[in-house]
Amino acid sequence: MFELHPRLAADTRVVGDLPLCRVLLSRDSQYPWLILVPRIAQLREIHHLGEADQQQLMRESCAVAAVMEASLHPDKINVGALGNLVPQLHLHHVARFACDAAWPGPIWGARPPQPYSEEQLESQVALWRERLAGVGGFIPAQ
Amino acid sequence: MFELHPRLAADTRVVGDLPLCRVLLSRDSQYPWLILVPRIAQLREIHHLGEADQQQLMRESCAVAAVMEASLHPDKINVGALGNLVPQLHLHHVARFACDAAWPGPIWGARPPQPYSEEQLESQVALWRERLAGVGGFIPAQ
Repeated sequence: MFELHPRLAADTRVVGDLPLCRVLLSRDSQYPWLILVPRIAQLREIHHLGEADQQQLMRESCAVAAVMEASLHPDKINVGALGNLVPQLHLHHVARFACDAAWPGPIWGARPPQPYSEEQLESQVALWRERLAGVGGFIPAQ
Repeated sequence: MFELHPRLAADTRVVGDLPLCRVLLSRDSQYPWLILVPRIAQLREIHHLGEADQQQLMRESCAVAAVMEASLHPDKINVGALGNLVPQLHLHHVARFACDAAWPGPIWGARPPQPYSEEQLESQVALWRERLAGVGGFIPAQ
């Protein structure tokens, strides 16, 4: 049975579900940062997915990246599956700006997280739910 | 016209071509590290590819990751498109080991590169050409 890894659950808020993936927002306020987690138990690597799910992951990843680009106009979108600390497969999408805290380095391991306040977090989650509403198959979390 | 970004060209050796991507080996000997670059001019983001090319990139990325896993048995494969320093779209594939120099952090920006000797590099490139020979559509560079 699919369950979110406790570390991912602690570090994020659930935005909603796409057909394959749960969409999470990182609690770190330093970067606009969405994470896709295929809702498949014991999954560690992208290439362990069946081919249809690999293609669906690509579709969902590109849809999320396109929404980030259209709404934020970042200088770059970093997309990455690392998973050294959290083995459950999860795909980061981070809108990067030449003025952000870690530019031009990667964000991972760069600086201690600066959490949103609970109020900011609620408002960000609501905003991402609105932005993702146009993506096919998106169901916002209750 | 597609041309490899000079920084990518300087930091890698060409292993060969898959139907969409040029396959590069990083000169940094600290990690087994292959890079896929779609042979399309002016490309910056995965989601800027047409849908058929997005799907082909996923197929090629998974094929490369599967070859890395089968030949090296790493603890994790890191896959990432960063591109803050080199804007040309390129997708890293790094076989990671719990005993490697940057574990469990990301490799990018972690430590200065330790280049292979020219002899080691030739031998590594030859080895990756052999390993990738079974991937559909792979053409080793001359």
